[in-house]
Amino acid sequence: MTVTTEAAALTDRHGVVHALPAPDAEAQVRADDRAHVFHSWSAQALIDPVPVAAGEGSTFWDYQGNAYLDFSSQLVNLNLGHQQPDLVAAIQQQAGRLATIQPSIANDVRGELARLIAEVAPEGMEKVFFTNGGADANEYAVRMARTFTGRRKVLSMYRSYHGSTATAISLTGDPRRWANDSVDNGTVRFFGPYLYRSAFHSETLEQESQRALEHLEQTIQLEGPSTIAAIIIETVVGTNGVLVPPPGYLQGVRELCDRYGIVYIADEVMVGFGRLGEWFGIDAFDAKPDLITFAKGVNSGYVPLGGVVIADRIAAAFDTVSFAGGLTYSGHPLACAAGVATFEVFRRDGILERVRDLGSRIVEPTLRGWVDKHPSVGEVRGQGLFWAVELVRSKETREPLVPFNAAGADAAPMGAFAAAAKKGGVWPFVHFNRTHVAPPLVITEDELVRGLAALDAALDVADEYTV
Amino acid sequence: MTVTTEAAALTDRHGVVHALPAPDAEAQVRADDRAHVFHSWSAQALIDPVPVAAGEGSTFWDYQGNAYLDFSSQLVNLNLGHQQPDLVAAIQQQAGRLATIQPSIANDVRGELARLIAEVAPEGMEKVFFTNGGADANEYAVRMARTFTGRRKVLSMYRSYHGSTATAISLTGDPRRWANDSVDNGTVRFFGPYLYRSAFHSETLEQESQRALEHLEQTIQLEGPSTIAAIIIETVVGTNGVLVPPPGYLQGVRELCDRYGIVYIADEVMVGFGRLGEWFGIDAFDAKPDLITFAKGVNSGYVPLGGVVIADRIAAAFDTVSFAGGLTYSGHPLACAAGVATFEVFRRDGILERVRDLGSRIVEPTLRGWVDKHPSVGEVRGQGLFWAVELVRSKETREPLVPFNAAGADAAPMGAFAAAAKKGGVWPFVHFNRTHVAPPLVITEDELVRGLAALDAALDVADEYTV
Ligand SMILES: Cc1ncc(COP(=O)(O)O)c(C=O)c1O
Ligand SMILES: Cc1ncc(COP(=O)(O)O)c(C=O)c1O
Repeated sequence: MTVTTEAAALTDRHGVVHALPAPDAEAQVRADDRAHVFHSWSAQALIDPVPVAAGEGSTFWDYQGNAYLDFSSQLVNLNLGHQQPDLVAAIQQQAGRLATIQPSIANDVRGELARLIAEVAPEGMEKVFFTNGGADANEYAVRMARTFTGRRKVLSMYRSYHGSTATAISLTGDPRRWANDSVDNGTVRFFGPYLYRSAFHSETLEQESQRALEHLEQTIQLEGPSTIAAIIIETVVGTNGVLVPPPGYLQGVRELCDRYGIVYIADEVMVGFGRLGEWFGIDAFDAKPDLITFAKGVNSGYVPLGGVVIADRIAAAFDTVSFAGGLTYSGHPLACAAGVATFEVFRRDGILERVRDLGSRIVEPTLRGWVDKHPSVGEVRGQGLFWAVELVRSKETREPLVPFNAAGADAAPMGAFAAAAKKGGVWPFVHFNRTHVAPPLVITEDELVRGLAALDAALDVADEYTV
Repeated sequence: MTVTTEAAALTDRHGVVHALPAPDAEAQVRADDRAHVFHSWSAQALIDPVPVAAGEGSTFWDYQGNAYLDFSSQLVNLNLGHQQPDLVAAIQQQAGRLATIQPSIANDVRGELARLIAEVAPEGMEKVFFTNGGADANEYAVRMARTFTGRRKVLSMYRSYHGSTATAISLTGDPRRWANDSVDNGTVRFFGPYLYRSAFHSETLEQESQRALEHLEQTIQLEGPSTIAAIIIETVVGTNGVLVPPPGYLQGVRELCDRYGIVYIADEVMVGFGRLGEWFGIDAFDAKPDLITFAKGVNSGYVPLGGVVIADRIAAAFDTVSFAGGLTYSGHPLACAAGVATFEVFRRDGILERVRDLGSRIVEPTLRGWVDKHPSVGEVRGQGLFWAVELVRSKETREPLVPFNAAGADAAPMGAFAAAAKKGGVWPFVHFNRTHVAPPLVITEDELVRGLAALDAALDVADEYTV
């Protein structure tokens, strides 16, 4: 897809020309937004949201015709890219057939998507509870675990994000929790494995895995095993760093859960549905959770959808006891239709295979090269099409390029990096002192190479802030 | 729309004939549902969800070709009925244009819907925060109130429903909270006005209004005004009884909130967007909340959407201070496009006017007639197209036809009533000892009269359980 120089039309990769909205349309979008839209996680007067005119595949355009390669897949949900024709058609068809029906009814696409998910989930996880997004998926997973165990506490990691409704934000281990601390006071944080900044003074991955498990078991023992309903873990920690679990860690979590009668919840909202080159991230680590939460990639966010995949022994606990939770839009047909189409596209287009291929053949070697090339690149890590580049002021001290949770002037170096990336045509994912490489899974090899080159160039700007 | 006798095709009101799915399609839907779909608020082995094959306007069909007039508007969300052509077209168009974009971007339909909502909201409420549904709308309204006031407690009514995520269910004043009690322990319940079963021994509406306000003020004083962030009230209590506030009550709430520096949140998830014949229910009572939460009717639930309308003085508190909340699908373009179309249809088709007309000319007199006619009808109450029929074993003692929160055999009389209604071609809303009349706002006069006649006949069954 290319943008004409007059920025008056876009030609997509099928050769179809789309007119850009008239320039005064942008003014109206800006005016409505500033006057009437209250934005997530923001000081409303300090933001200046960019109006986006169109999107296709891995690219989106502003009203000036500037194109951005989306290396953030929006909020790491746009796994099949913008305007994927099969998903669009599935939504259009379902809208014309039966746009909505309440949760207590049996519905064809709702049941079909549940079946498709169960088929790719680990054996012994046959049922799916559908929600609207990731936060409520975690809310309901925790509720199932609490009812199932009769216990109340839930353990989660520092450096994690689980969503923003009351229980989900209370579980969250990043600063977004601070303003909402302990609304659900049955939550406790522990440290996960993170060798580059080890909480356990480890020197190898094996050590980090073992010591992190020892720490988790100590936490369980000190909090009281009989009080702990669940442990919730992002299979690969997403927003807080693409922290890939070291070998043995997630198996160790399973063993601890078995030993102490605790439910293991895998939060796969960000990594589920292909991000790591597997249907579920757990498949890459041979992990065995009791509950898997998902959202985002299940239908690329084309229609709000999330859910919980439930181990049979937990589902069975609700065979004759009522589950105390629900929502008006559970199993929404429009959302489920987009989910069913997602399975078709993944299979037809070999999405999982291409993620593994592009990740190992293009992304990994390129990023590893940056560690040598750029003084600001402290570490790179990841899997599939999910990578973090951790920026530092000094490789020796590993001091982050900007302080933890930096804002405003303190965050200037990352701001300069992001601005350079955008100027180079890439919309980067930036969090604290990291940039993540998380493009749509349909990104072409050419786009991927081009985007990585733009990030490479932007890292020159980051290098200027090293000591 | 009629069903042919062979139940093989449906002819809609435009004369278009739709083939019914083949009978073996039903078996597949049932099989997938029972094997893989985990249902809201249910003991999974004790339910038998009906597969629905199609819907149009106020009617939906099962796979046998049985038609049901939907007197529950699904979960009181389907305000414009099934398959409303303008909403369907808006979704199809938006899907083809830009299915999704993240919340931090400025988007045309997102801004347009926010503006349209602000235009019909009370003066001085210019900004809208979009969510996925009703529960999270309430979660974020409470969060705004807590941050704004620096206080923690939220007061809500017994006999209320505010959703099922942690804070929303903790606020809820019906038995669905019991299993989730105090997850957010900053919640306190008080008694609202309900003259038919007055908590205050009132004999008139005036007395009930005044005494309920005295009770609320005492609760505020005893809980500690300086600890109370917000009071949340369904403008007309929905699921828990269509409890219409008596004259002066909601004004009195406003005065108490002003006196004690408390934020008044109006939960309009069920009554917003036309159910009472007004854009917002508060317009029918001249109430002045600080935050209005909505969902359902905003787009008839065609795409998951909810939100909070925010008083300017509260929005301004987040101009330079960050709002600590967010969700991946805030302001989802597909959902917002259906919302924009909703405004167009409401205006073009005079929906608010027809709700007021049908409510006062058809529903109210018919239901009032039932009080005299049926020994089981203790009271009817409501407004617009939102009415409750409260069933009793004895008009004298007002003993409910089934015990509070009855299940199984105890609930048999209401089960018999519901079965009779369904046999008569109406899908009724049944909760405890009540049936509600809450059809789509587009219901034709003929359908409405026909459905009411079926309920009337079903009440004969309820009459058999009176003493
Ligand atoms: C791992 C993880 N869990 C949960 C969520 C919350 O999902 P949502 O924003 O749909 O509520 C997110 C969102 O980024 C996430 O990354
Ligand atoms: C008054 C009220 N508030 C909140 C909700 C919760 O909405 P949702 O089911 O979309 O979370 C409902 C749902 O019935 C409701 O009636």
